[in-house]
Amino acid sequence: MSKKYVYLFSEANGSMKEILGGKGANLAEMTNLGMPVPQGFTVSTEACTKYYEDGKNISSIIEKEIFSQLTELENISGKKFGDPSNPLLVSVRSGARASMPGMMDTILNLGLNDKVVEGVAKLTNNDRFAYDSYRRFIQMFSDVVMDVSKHHFEKIIDQMKQKKGVTLDTDLTADDLKEMVVKFKEYYKSQKNEDFPSDPKLQLMESIKAVFRSWDNPRAIFYRRMNDIPASWGTAVNVQMMVFGNTGDTSGTGVAFSRNPSTGEKKLYGEFLINAQGEDVVAGIRTPQTIDELKDIMPEIYNEFVSIVDKLEEHYRDMQDMEFTIENKKLYMLQTRSGKRTASAALQIACDLVNEKMVDKKTAVSMIDPKQLDALLHPQFDIKAIKNATPIGSALPASPGAACGKVVFTAEDAVEWTKRGEIIILVRLETSPEDIEGMHVAQGILTVRGGMTSHAAVVARGMGTCCVSGCGDIKMSSKSFELDGKTIKEGDYISLDGSTGKIYLGKIDTVKAEISGNFETIMSWADEFRTMKIRTNADTPIDAKTAASFGAEGIGLCRTEHMFFEGDRIKSMREMIVAKSETQRRKALDKLLPMQRGDFEALYEAMGGHPVTIRYLDPPLHEFLPHAEKDIISLAKEMNIEVSDLKSIIDSLHEFNPMMGHRGCRLAVSYPEIAEMQTRAVIEAAINVKKKHTDWNIIPEIMIPLIGEVREFEYVKKIVVETADKIIKESGLKLEYKVGTMIEIPRAALTADEIAKHADFFSFGTNDLTQMTFGFSRDDAGNFLDHYYDKKIYENDPFARLDQVGVGKLIEMSVKLGRQTKSDLKLGICGEHGGDPSSIDFCYNLGLDYVSCSPFRVPIARLAAAQSAINKK
Amino acid sequence: MSKKYVYLFSEANGSMKEILGGKGANLAEMTNLGMPVPQGFTVSTEACTKYYEDGKNISSIIEKEIFSQLTELENISGKKFGDPSNPLLVSVRSGARASMPGMMDTILNLGLNDKVVEGVAKLTNNDRFAYDSYRRFIQMFSDVVMDVSKHHFEKIIDQMKQKKGVTLDTDLTADDLKEMVVKFKEYYKSQKNEDFPSDPKLQLMESIKAVFRSWDNPRAIFYRRMNDIPASWGTAVNVQMMVFGNTGDTSGTGVAFSRNPSTGEKKLYGEFLINAQGEDVVAGIRTPQTIDELKDIMPEIYNEFVSIVDKLEEHYRDMQDMEFTIENKKLYMLQTRSGKRTASAALQIACDLVNEKMVDKKTAVSMIDPKQLDALLHPQFDIKAIKNATPIGSALPASPGAACGKVVFTAEDAVEWTKRGEIIILVRLETSPEDIEGMHVAQGILTVRGGMTSHAAVVARGMGTCCVSGCGDIKMSSKSFELDGKTIKEGDYISLDGSTGKIYLGKIDTVKAEISGNFETIMSWADEFRTMKIRTNADTPIDAKTAASFGAEGIGLCRTEHMFFEGDRIKSMREMIVAKSETQRRKALDKLLPMQRGDFEALYEAMGGHPVTIRYLDPPLHEFLPHAEKDIISLAKEMNIEVSDLKSIIDSLHEFNPMMGHRGCRLAVSYPEIAEMQTRAVIEAAINVKKKHTDWNIIPEIMIPLIGEVREFEYVKKIVVETADKIIKESGLKLEYKVGTMIEIPRAALTADEIAKHADFFSFGTNDLTQMTFGFSRDDAGNFLDHYYDKKIYENDPFARLDQVGVGKLIEMSVKLGRQTKSDLKLGICGEHGGDPSSIDFCYNLGLDYVSCSPFRVPIARLAAAQSAINKK
Repeated sequence: MSKKYVYLFSEANGSMKEILGGKGANLAEMTNLGMPVPQGFTVSTEACTKYYEDGKNISSIIEKEIFSQLTELENISGKKFGDPSNPLLVSVRSGARASMPGMMDTILNLGLNDKVVEGVAKLTNNDRFAYDSYRRFIQMFSDVVMDVSKHHFEKIIDQMKQKKGVTLDTDLTADDLKEMVVKFKEYYKSQKNEDFPSDPKLQLMESIKAVFRSWDNPRAIFYRRMNDIPASWGTAVNVQMMVFGNTGDTSGTGVAFSRNPSTGEKKLYGEFLINAQGEDVVAGIRTPQTIDELKDIMPEIYNEFVSIVDKLEEHYRDMQDMEFTIENKKLYMLQTRSGKRTASAALQIACDLVNEKMVDKKTAVSMIDPKQLDALLHPQFDIKAIKNATPIGSALPASPGAACGKVVFTAEDAVEWTKRGEIIILVRLETSPEDIEGMHVAQGILTVRGGMTSHAAVVARGMGTCCVSGCGDIKMSSKSFELDGKTIKEGDYISLDGSTGKIYLGKIDTVKAEISGNFETIMSWADEFRTMKIRTNADTPIDAKTAASFGAEGIGLCRTEHMFFEGDRIKSMREMIVAKSETQRRKALDKLLPMQRGDFEALYEAMGGHPVTIRYLDPPLHEFLPHAEKDIISLAKEMNIEVSDLKSIIDSLHEFNPMMGHRGCRLAVSYPEIAEMQTRAVIEAAINVKKKHTDWNIIPEIMIPLIGEVREFEYVKKIVVETADKIIKESGLKLEYKVGTMIEIPRAALTADEIAKHADFFSFGTNDLTQMTFGFSRDDAGNFLDHYYDKKIYENDPFARLDQVGVGKLIEMSVKLGRQTKSDLKLGICGEHGGDPSSIDFCYNLGLDYVSCSPFRVPIARLAAAQSAINKK
Repeated sequence: MSKKYVYLFSEANGSMKEILGGKGANLAEMTNLGMPVPQGFTVSTEACTKYYEDGKNISSIIEKEIFSQLTELENISGKKFGDPSNPLLVSVRSGARASMPGMMDTILNLGLNDKVVEGVAKLTNNDRFAYDSYRRFIQMFSDVVMDVSKHHFEKIIDQMKQKKGVTLDTDLTADDLKEMVVKFKEYYKSQKNEDFPSDPKLQLMESIKAVFRSWDNPRAIFYRRMNDIPASWGTAVNVQMMVFGNTGDTSGTGVAFSRNPSTGEKKLYGEFLINAQGEDVVAGIRTPQTIDELKDIMPEIYNEFVSIVDKLEEHYRDMQDMEFTIENKKLYMLQTRSGKRTASAALQIACDLVNEKMVDKKTAVSMIDPKQLDALLHPQFDIKAIKNATPIGSALPASPGAACGKVVFTAEDAVEWTKRGEIIILVRLETSPEDIEGMHVAQGILTVRGGMTSHAAVVARGMGTCCVSGCGDIKMSSKSFELDGKTIKEGDYISLDGSTGKIYLGKIDTVKAEISGNFETIMSWADEFRTMKIRTNADTPIDAKTAASFGAEGIGLCRTEHMFFEGDRIKSMREMIVAKSETQRRKALDKLLPMQRGDFEALYEAMGGHPVTIRYLDPPLHEFLPHAEKDIISLAKEMNIEVSDLKSIIDSLHEFNPMMGHRGCRLAVSYPEIAEMQTRAVIEAAINVKKKHTDWNIIPEIMIPLIGEVREFEYVKKIVVETADKIIKESGLKLEYKVGTMIEIPRAALTADEIAKHADFFSFGTNDLTQMTFGFSRDDAGNFLDHYYDKKIYENDPFARLDQVGVGKLIEMSVKLGRQTKSDLKLGICGEHGGDPSSIDFCYNLGLDYVSCSPFRVPIARLAAAQSAINKK
């Protein structure tokens, strides 16, 4: 039997989302439930895939099937497509597997032409309605299917209204509309050099193709990327008998939610318009009435609707988002789907459904999109204040939350202004580790260059600070910038929305987001099902405390280099770098030791006995030295060395590709005394804290970065072990510690069996692993990744969502090889992906022991890990 | 049965090289052949490995075995270790599996102490001999075993000679020597705070340990790296009864080769000294006599020696390098091994041995080290001229051959000076693609920065130009540099040896190397056995012709970007880069098209119908733009655009990690019109040449670089195929062409099964693949790789010798996945490794169809591939 591509609603059911899309499956399901659904058929998502495979053509087999089902629909409806005496009109709507509201196209009133419209007029005895429908169809079809922009049609309407001296569309008469139809068709011909298509079958086929095409329009591609929807899914097309809400005052159309989508309150929520078609509700020309008012206007219809709503919620066991139309006092359901909701509504509804015994806890936990929780963890703009604000630009939503403050342009100014009580936003071309202190005090960060995983983005997300990155439209001057024709000077107020990437001029109030009781309830349910541990990436005690309060069960990554930038430390660090002998270097390291030991003590304290993984110095040393002439001169003076000497040191440290340079464990191989000092700090701090908290079982986990070869690991491990064991012996205490490695270089993954012989744990550094595996630097990829998205070569940013095909293969290989050598090898992930739900799911299925993510992503990770356990493959 | 670690010579044989080392195995073999070998025993290489495993300790089991074999030796010799009345004295010598002349340590006359020396004196009736042997032993043992530098001992000797008013050591009397022994021991005690060890057994064990230790001295590590000898092999130790060449005029010692090691001539070659120990021959204080003179002095001994030499050559079927000692008119053989020889001698001997029916062609081909051929392909210093030259510095031997010329500091000057007839050496901080023309005209290239695979090194090797790279000791000024305290100004003569990395001040004459008939003979024999094809990496018709004359069977890599740097081309290229629209870009590309088409025509012509693989534009665009302020200003003027505009373009093209930036196929994805132009050039050129040579079956192979994802390849291939097919159709001719990809990004290797669905061939770009797999850039790795060698983390430069463990695993995976999809997938390698014998062997065993290397490596590759076929696993 050959494949079936087209299904009548009455032939299908709600479980067929994959091939019929959400809308199609639900229309079939409502039909099965005996609800008043205008009948129709669905052209499957497989037909869409085949359309693309066939070079954007609908094959004759599928076309035949469409027309055969159209005949069935004629039989069901008792009407005939293109027959003026009893015309069947249809709507053509997209419907993908996952709901993508507004992303694709819709055509209403299809089947009209000069003859059919007359038949409709006669049958309904309503010329105005008939021609209003016709002109809407021409307009929509031209715009959506034929690429003739609707603007000119709007202009014709405006001209007509002017001529007639009226302001509302509804004030135009049937004759006016007839005249407009003629003008519309003339305009169409002038644009396309052919008559407006009058054959309904042609109209239908072209419309179906247009919907298929719209699967690949830029906004759909973007939406898919943001929501992890694969291009291969395709969209279905629903062809449905038209019902009309615009036949007069006994008709109308509306949308409703079974519960409040903003708050989650269990109360019908929605609006409707009398004598209107769906697009009017959206267009906002007339103000719709609330759904409650329908009770008074059409009580019977209202009651019928409410009972359907209850039935649907009972059936789907989730809040429903529905469209309906009333045609001459008869109610029709046009759509139902799980309603989109705000994060707090999502929590409220999930909790309520459990309390109402509609769903169990497992289902409630599964219902919430982990990514949505982000919004609950950061400040947001005051809804009233933001309502009338117009952005002056937008860029990448690099770190969520809203912020408002006075603009400063250097990290030093940020610190200084904050000290004198100002609230500031730091604006930089790009940020570097030297800016860390300024970033810390800023309310928000705006950069001209850099992607979602640039330095600014990564650090800001780690700190939970709002950040908008890569705003290439900004023209920077020394203490001001231009954007959207406006000049913003130092001290001027701007506001940033890190969740949307929008940039606003002036002051917009923000409100601290609330974490309600529901949030805690859901998290505690999630923890009941979760089996994988969640740790956090934290470099400071503050971050560690924040993460612990969000439920982090340890630190998976503490980047020790971040500790070397503050205040006096950078000075000692620089002394270490310019040292000309091991002795000089050790002298500088001796100054760093107590500071670093203090940091670690504070971290252990903050984590209260939970495991703490400390990564040794990672960045190339030149990152700690200045590059601007004036900074070099002042540093030379401060260090009491010749400018030319300092310059030649900086020169000698220059690297063509710093990402692939002298960094990570390579520093420890060249200068073992650095690893020695860091080991001393780690172990001495653990001993000190252990003395204070004798009941804590502190087990420091020392992590050697950038290992590519087992002998490299052995070499550094030997230094660590010799240093640590000596200190422990001297202390007289018992202290266990682990030495493990990042797996972030392809060669480490390929030789994981060898490395596992010596390593106590692996932590997948998926940021670098992604860079090396793809061969592109995350700082530079922004220059070309957009072309890749446009051309559908990549659908996702591999730095945001783990590439399971390539990078994932390496990780899988490491897990297999590593556990083959050491079955109890502890495995975790500490790249940016540790906070991404789909990547977390991948890690869960590989059997990782934990994921580690930035503090503000801990709740997301907890929920995502719980869902993975629930959906266990 | 427990493992045996110590073998008497009489217990072993010549096949046991792996555990006894070359020297030990050959001593055993000579013993078996009944030759006069002073007996002894060999402590195995496995004992050495165990010594390192046991934390640099010789286990008691092995010690016991040594002493038990020592007792056997006493029985054989009838002498007793440490017994003054009949003392056994021994030598202790290293002997690795592969010969490493001079790299490790030797101790002679072991077993002497204050009592034994008296016994020796009495037995030999020769006080002077006894004390001369004793002082030599103290000196050697202190230096080699106890780390007491020999310099002070030399000083004591000098003082004694002064005091006695003599100039030669041999003029010192027995009493003088006795006095010196006392002083030697005093000095020893002053340094070590203990008496010189008098227990012969202790002396023996310490000496064996010292030999084991010397396996890991820096010069041995360096030698191993240069000669691909793994550290894990270890060295054996030979303990052999002493025979003495220094007992008087009826004694002597010498070395000889069975054929001339410089020319290969079949004639005994060597020298000897009467009344001397081995070290005197090496020390050069007395001038040795040629071996022919022995005929007159000791005709019987000479005849015995000649007959042994003949027997050894007959036995080993190769030229032998032998050491012998005559003790009181009795000949002893101390060593035989295959002799090191020059490249031309190697060819001569191989050819002669075949003619003499000593070996077959297969063996002859196997006998020659492919790497040696390099010397035959490049100019060398005149032997007489170089003899007295002292280098002022040395750096990496980046591209072989010798060169001499006047120093210039810019590529422009190189071109200009050459035009006016000067012979020049180009000295640069580092080279970049802009320097290509200057590099082309230079006799030699010297750089301050960059490793063996830096731009300068790779390009120079490709052109066959001498290059010394990475001379960090150089201090550059604007038109001069300082090295070794000397200032070399523009126009001064320097000379470079690219085979040794040495740099000389002044003019040293060079001679063009000769390619003799033997060379062609061996190559033709090699081709009889070879199955894998050899192609070349060539970007210009000149390179292609050179390679063809060396036997290249096609071009495996033509880097098209090199074509864009010359003369007017860079101008059009830059126009293309600064273009603000596709239209402008196409206009500039139109100018490049005829130039590129012409290049390809010339390449096809040069290769006479052999396959030509053309790689599309690879480097990031900023490489084509200037970076110095003054160059930017002059370019802006030339291009008639604002300086600020040009600067902002250059800024926008800036990359943090250009290696991982917007390059390779990423350019074609962003600007498909570039790939279109290049396809047009490739195909049109092929059609034009085909019209001229109707009998050539030209099949252009288009290679898309830097693929990481199959859809990337599909996207670019589509552009290629559409463009090519249209042109071919229009031409009315039939033309086959292939579209394949580089595998140089780990992700491509990991997804090779997918890519193979669409690619006609894979070419492994092992330079980039090595960079990405190790996560270090070859331009930056120089900063730390030395530390890695010192610490034995890496034994080889992975850019020179393919890393079979990591990178090799990826290649193997690609081969398997690729051929799984497409069994006839054509596979080659075009990285630097294509010219490295061990890497070629790896490629052969993976089943690759061809390797591609720089023109001057083609003969090496032909020979190496033949050897792989002969040694087929």
